[in-house]
Amino acid sequence: MTDPENQAHHPDADLNRQALDFHAQPRPGKIGTLITKPAVTQHDLSLAYTPGVAEPVRRIHAEPDLAYSYTNKGNLVAVITDGSAVLGLGNVGALAGKPVMEGKAVLFKRFADIDCFDIEVDAESPQAFIETVVRIAPTFGGINLEDIAAPHCFEIEQALIERLDIPVFHDDQHGTAIIIAAGLLNALELQGKTLAESRLVVLGAGAAGIAGVHLLLALGAQPDNILCVDRLGIIHTGREDLSPYKRGVAVATDKRTLAEAMVGADVFIGVSGPDLVTPEMIAAMAPRPVVFALSNPVPEIRPDVALAVRDDLVMATGRSDYPNQINNVLGFPFIFRGALDVRASRINQAMQIAAVEALRALAREPVPGDVLDAYGLKELHFGSDYIIPKPFDPRLRERVPVAVARAAIDSGVARLSSDH
Amino acid sequence: MTDPENQAHHPDADLNRQALDFHAQPRPGKIGTLITKPAVTQHDLSLAYTPGVAEPVRRIHAEPDLAYSYTNKGNLVAVITDGSAVLGLGNVGALAGKPVMEGKAVLFKRFADIDCFDIEVDAESPQAFIETVVRIAPTFGGINLEDIAAPHCFEIEQALIERLDIPVFHDDQHGTAIIIAAGLLNALELQGKTLAESRLVVLGAGAAGIAGVHLLLALGAQPDNILCVDRLGIIHTGREDLSPYKRGVAVATDKRTLAEAMVGADVFIGVSGPDLVTPEMIAAMAPRPVVFALSNPVPEIRPDVALAVRDDLVMATGRSDYPNQINNVLGFPFIFRGALDVRASRINQAMQIAAVEALRALAREPVPGDVLDAYGLKELHFGSDYIIPKPFDPRLRERVPVAVARAAIDSGVARLSSDH
Repeated sequence: MTDPENQAHHPDADLNRQALDFHAQPRPGKIGTLITKPAVTQHDLSLAYTPGVAEPVRRIHAEPDLAYSYTNKGNLVAVITDGSAVLGLGNVGALAGKPVMEGKAVLFKRFADIDCFDIEVDAESPQAFIETVVRIAPTFGGINLEDIAAPHCFEIEQALIERLDIPVFHDDQHGTAIIIAAGLLNALELQGKTLAESRLVVLGAGAAGIAGVHLLLALGAQPDNILCVDRLGIIHTGREDLSPYKRGVAVATDKRTLAEAMVGADVFIGVSGPDLVTPEMIAAMAPRPVVFALSNPVPEIRPDVALAVRDDLVMATGRSDYPNQINNVLGFPFIFRGALDVRASRINQAMQIAAVEALRALAREPVPGDVLDAYGLKELHFGSDYIIPKPFDPRLRERVPVAVARAAIDSGVARLSSDH
Repeated sequence: MTDPENQAHHPDADLNRQALDFHAQPRPGKIGTLITKPAVTQHDLSLAYTPGVAEPVRRIHAEPDLAYSYTNKGNLVAVITDGSAVLGLGNVGALAGKPVMEGKAVLFKRFADIDCFDIEVDAESPQAFIETVVRIAPTFGGINLEDIAAPHCFEIEQALIERLDIPVFHDDQHGTAIIIAAGLLNALELQGKTLAESRLVVLGAGAAGIAGVHLLLALGAQPDNILCVDRLGIIHTGREDLSPYKRGVAVATDKRTLAEAMVGADVFIGVSGPDLVTPEMIAAMAPRPVVFALSNPVPEIRPDVALAVRDDLVMATGRSDYPNQINNVLGFPFIFRGALDVRASRINQAMQIAAVEALRALAREPVPGDVLDAYGLKELHFGSDYIIPKPFDPRLRERVPVAVARAAIDSGVARLSSDH
């Protein structure tokens, strides 16, 4: 599939070589077991294992909630995939998805001190995947579904939410939707527009696109103002090929193509593929538009190309080398941190909106010196080049989990008070 | 189930209280995620996650074995239970088994630097358990089955060995059998006897008992010389109630009771329950007998009681406060270490016997000062009070894995040379 000889001539060859070395040396992989209790002496081990361990077992057997007191369950999230939609690489299978899942575990630990097991599931069907996750769920305090292809991801997540009493969160859906929404609300405000009045085009009707539409509707977008576009064009009510999930975002319209959709649109959100948007489409948008070209690593249209067409737009991408990176790491570590801290039974829409508002508010605060230093910047102010916090902003850890935890309590899904 | 008020009057109350505190403070549980690569800067994360992680994914997709180069798979063992036979506590269920599985993960890491995920499976049937483990297996380099009740444990392990290309090892069966065999061979030699000529009684026909018999047969014990005893008495060929696994160890005999079996026996191995052996039974054994009373924490007969009956016996227990502790930690960390080091596809009987021989040989070597110091001993010599190495002997890590790895190579199940 990949030819190292040819790759030497590719501009990404350096990064690829570095990444392979990073993963291989000095020992393979990125995560391992951390022993969190003394385990040196015979006495230590008599507490950690037999005979001492029998007593926590008896207690949990009598009162299952005590698993949160005597095991790591309450701080342990499984990052689970079937490998069916890994990065932009498609269905590479369970095993090949492992580097991504280990990487996600690194991010959970790095940003929110959440312990993580990556689990790659080789499942012959969505039902088999669901049954597998349900059966291993006692191990965990939360489940982060990752890189599962649409439309199966929707039914899988829904079934797991219904069957389990711990948070289940498909980050490619809701994590992405939350960061998009936070950035978009700020961008629209900068452009003097409201979500309710804006006309939106969403290109890509996979996990992120569908979930994004639903979250934006919950935040006030008008159903008739959102045109979703997939490979076959605009998702309209007259199409016969739609899955139930796409049917849920279909609108009655005579328009058929992306180009038609873009005429007069206030907002473009791309969660699709490289270079699908032309300069002409950008030119045809309404005054003061917002363009989120989030395909990675190559966006739907590059910022320099779009900004050459018109200078009245606010733009975001998925890349760290342009302003306004829409990066899921702004969300999932802190959302799970908040959910785990109050032992929420799920991550509901109220909690997701709380995360949106917390992220949105943080971008409007003055940026402290340590964040500027981390990015080698002299200044950074809320504006068209700064609509969403930076991933290395330590205030994320302070603000987002608290907001999510409060929303969990207020919406009745928390099993602990926030004082915990 | 447990009443803390009453417990204060129980002699184990101190240990139980200490164990609960150990598990709960300063944070619940005993293991977590260790990030093993740099994860501080934006550049670090661009290698650990997107965009860098895409290249290891592509490589593994093209060549699955590269998962051993770019992920933690090759050093990662799952400790998996269904909670059906946890310690001596019985079927406490998946969740309540978690402290034991986390403890096992601590031991894997502590003794052999093997990373470990504990997985508690809530399975409605052995088949559901098997399917679940098969589906999550791509994640791991090996699978340690733990605390699964007989007879299901036999079919579960057999099915998983057949279906997976990584080592699957039910420690309650083979781990226990290996340590018993190593100790027993040394004890018999001290008593001037051979395994082939000895008459054996095995009390308890669960995972450890059945596996122990099969390993001892492979080491030269004679089938007609082994009497297995379960709750209903001697397992003889005339019984109609036998599972296929018990039928495999049944013999034709007129004897019916444990007391009858013990008359003239050279060896007693108890893997059953507390206080099931009487002083009269010990008195009735052959001259110079070997008594392994391994029920934990209360043995089938206490060493002081047995030694009061006769002083010509060699005795072992499962407890650390008597000489000759038969402790599985002498085996599983090092057996998996050896198997993983040469990427063995299974842990076959040749490898198990290699572990027996390595343990047996180590006990016969002079004990170095650091081992004596660890146990507060002035001297320790091969003899009736020292037939098996001590768990904190650092030479275990040097000897056992190498022996197991060599046996894997010699028996054709290794996928790497030992030079790896």
